[in-house]
Amino acid sequence: MHELKVTTERHTQLLDITSQVREAVRGSTGAAVLVYVPHTTAGLTINEHADPLVARDFEMALEQIAPDGWGWQHIEEGEENAPSHIRAALMGSQVLIPLRDGELALGTYQGIYFCEYDGPRTRKVFVTALS
Amino acid sequence: MHELKVTTERHTQLLDITSQVREAVRGSTGAAVLVYVPHTTAGLTINEHADPLVARDFEMALEQIAPDGWGWQHIEEGEENAPSHIRAALMGSQVLIPLRDGELALGTYQGIYFCEYDGPRTRKVFVTALS
Amino acid sequence: MHELKVTTERHTQLLDITSQVREAVRGSTGAAVLVYVPHTTAGLTINEHADPLVARDFEMALEQIAPDGWGWQHIEEGEENAPSHIRAALMGSQVLIPLRDGELALGTYQGIYFCEYDGPRTRKVFVTALS
Repeated sequence: MHELKVTTERHTQLLDITSQVREAVRGSTGAAVLVYVPHTTAGLTINEHADPLVARDFEMALEQIAPDGWGWQHIEEGEENAPSHIRAALMGSQVLIPLRDGELALGTYQGIYFCEYDGPRTRKVFVTALS
Repeated sequence: MHELKVTTERHTQLLDITSQVREAVRGSTGAAVLVYVPHTTAGLTINEHADPLVARDFEMALEQIAPDGWGWQHIEEGEENAPSHIRAALMGSQVLIPLRDGELALGTYQGIYFCEYDGPRTRKVFVTALS
Repeated sequence: MHELKVTTERHTQLLDITSQVREAVRGSTGAAVLVYVPHTTAGLTINEHADPLVARDFEMALEQIAPDGWGWQHIEEGEENAPSHIRAALMGSQVLIPLRDGELALGTYQGIYFCEYDGPRTRKVFVTALS
């Protein structure tokens, strides 16, 4: 299992980690690659990385879908991050990408995004090949 | 493949099944564990299980994101559960967690939640190790 | 890895691909089947396919959860599909289904849906068995 380090700079931020994942699995002979986030206010998604505005739209949209103003119960002093948990879960804690001839079988426009909903932070991402 | 039984007590309820999954995979030698729900109004998510109020927030939030009042077409007599299907799908039917030294590589605050959206019911959860 | 072809006929459309996936994995001896969409405005979900109105509800609901009218930044001339990316990601790019005795361990009411959010188009779906 490979462990990547990701550093985010904003509260809500999608970060393209495609090349880091590709590097981690170089030479793998399995059937698929599991990318996994061991955090509860960050997630992963696969989507377009040709136009960086798609990532900005994801940041806006998740904040609208699970907005700050709802009557959240999870409140820790100094940590107002209740909706961050929902936003992360709507994206999901893992993505799984098939391997073809040892390469990620991503579509032409697809990239792998780390989805930060409670940054800025330094985060971990696990990458492992499945056979 | 292991089959767990889960019993829910409310219409919408997140239930922490981390210890049951951990028990089911004890001694497994694979690379990851697949947890799967064979139901259409229940799902799975991975999120914080330190503060139980996070689970309550998930219950509230999914009912807001896909509310009862929309013009749902799927209506069966005595079974008003159309939005339950969407809520379940937003969480997803499966989670996949890497194994490290035979243990679930969950983050410090992460737990595995069964997400009931049409309870109370007795439900099944499949657990299987992938190599 | 098997490659399926899917043709959609509407802008937003859930299409039941269960039998195509089942056919693709016939005789497989693995532990699970990965179904993957290499597109950024289409996704996959597992849900009820007994009543086709459930699929119609999914089409309506995702258009409400991420509506056309938000201030989307991703705009390409002639291609007003920004929310399509979010809708696809909320469903997810992959599903993973356990195999039991060589058969998909789907629940009684579960089917595998291709989720089109920017059709009509001809699309690809990858299917691969994991061991």
